[in-house]
Amino acid sequence: MRLLEEKIRKDGKVLNENVLKVDSFLNHQIDANLMNEVGKEFAQRFAGEGITKIVTIESSGIAPAVMAGLYMNVPVIFARKRKSLTLTDDLLTARVHSFTKNETNELAIARKYVKKNDKVLIIDDFLANGQAALALVEMVHNAGASVAGIGIVIEKSFQPGAQILKEQGLRVESLARIASLSNGEVTFITDKMEEVIQ
Amino acid sequence: MRLLEEKIRKDGKVLNENVLKVDSFLNHQIDANLMNEVGKEFAQRFAGEGITKIVTIESSGIAPAVMAGLYMNVPVIFARKRKSLTLTDDLLTARVHSFTKNETNELAIARKYVKKNDKVLIIDDFLANGQAALALVEMVHNAGASVAGIGIVIEKSFQPGAQILKEQGLRVESLARIASLSNGEVTFITDKMEEVIQ
Repeated sequence: MRLLEEKIRKDGKVLNENVLKVDSFLNHQIDANLMNEVGKEFAQRFAGEGITKIVTIESSGIAPAVMAGLYMNVPVIFARKRKSLTLTDDLLTARVHSFTKNETNELAIARKYVKKNDKVLIIDDFLANGQAALALVEMVHNAGASVAGIGIVIEKSFQPGAQILKEQGLRVESLARIASLSNGEVTFITDKMEEVIQ
Repeated sequence: MRLLEEKIRKDGKVLNENVLKVDSFLNHQIDANLMNEVGKEFAQRFAGEGITKIVTIESSGIAPAVMAGLYMNVPVIFARKRKSLTLTDDLLTARVHSFTKNETNELAIARKYVKKNDKVLIIDDFLANGQAALALVEMVHNAGASVAGIGIVIEKSFQPGAQILKEQGLRVESLARIASLSNGEVTFITDKMEEVIQ
């Protein structure tokens, strides 16, 4: 998605070979217009999949997921990272380790919001090692529902997440795919590069 | 806002005299279409205030804030409840106690995203005791910026938050105002009731 790649080049900060900081438009300050376009793009890419629900994780997944929910006209559920006092229902849970934050969280979704016949689109801001997405897949499967696909805003393609998810037969659509953060620069995987790789 | 009041009547669950559970459309599962209307309504109510930034708190404030940001064409910043490893900038912070969750959090916003000349609209999902809104007001003021108003999705008017904020001269716009949760029922403050009260 060209608009997103341009935004990453312009406002993303490469902290080191593994970390791209995008807190000026995605995960602290949010560019609502960009999120609107991101939501529209997810809706286009997953049109025809019969999606009935979107599942994401608090907090950075919420903006892109809600915009996608608007264009796909389906409810959005965000998994909570710990149980709140008012989230006392029967829960779907999974544990997820974040390498970026070096912490393990238990994710929880109220079971009543994911039904057996749901076709779920999982959305998240980043895909790196795939731990968060795998935890969401596990929860959706535990509800007896199916995962129609995984929509990612920024994929760090040099980390194994995308590959792991695809090996499980899951459709992954990442709007920006980063080949490398070496030398302080963002290099995207372009369609042309992909032809050469394959 | 009639659409929101109807949704609360239909899908809100009164747990006790103080707690209204709206996790089927606002703070766990999100009704994206309703949030779109909520965002539009905030934009209408605060039109002409010259707002340059929206500030909210993760997680439940994000959906209404991003929709408002879209219609007002301004960036949205969500305060984080603890410092993440990549949020290492100079921070604006404040402590906030949640009576609902019985926990105290430190909120943080990267100082660079709130400038002296910013006119900030604060948005949150609930207003009860006003602690969260007051913490956000404190951070905005510490940045030298001004608070143009406070937009709330659901105000529990029988708790003191709205009054406290108004006494500080702040403009509070709440899209649904709940007079009481007694007897398992939601009673809204209607314009008519307000005339009687005043």
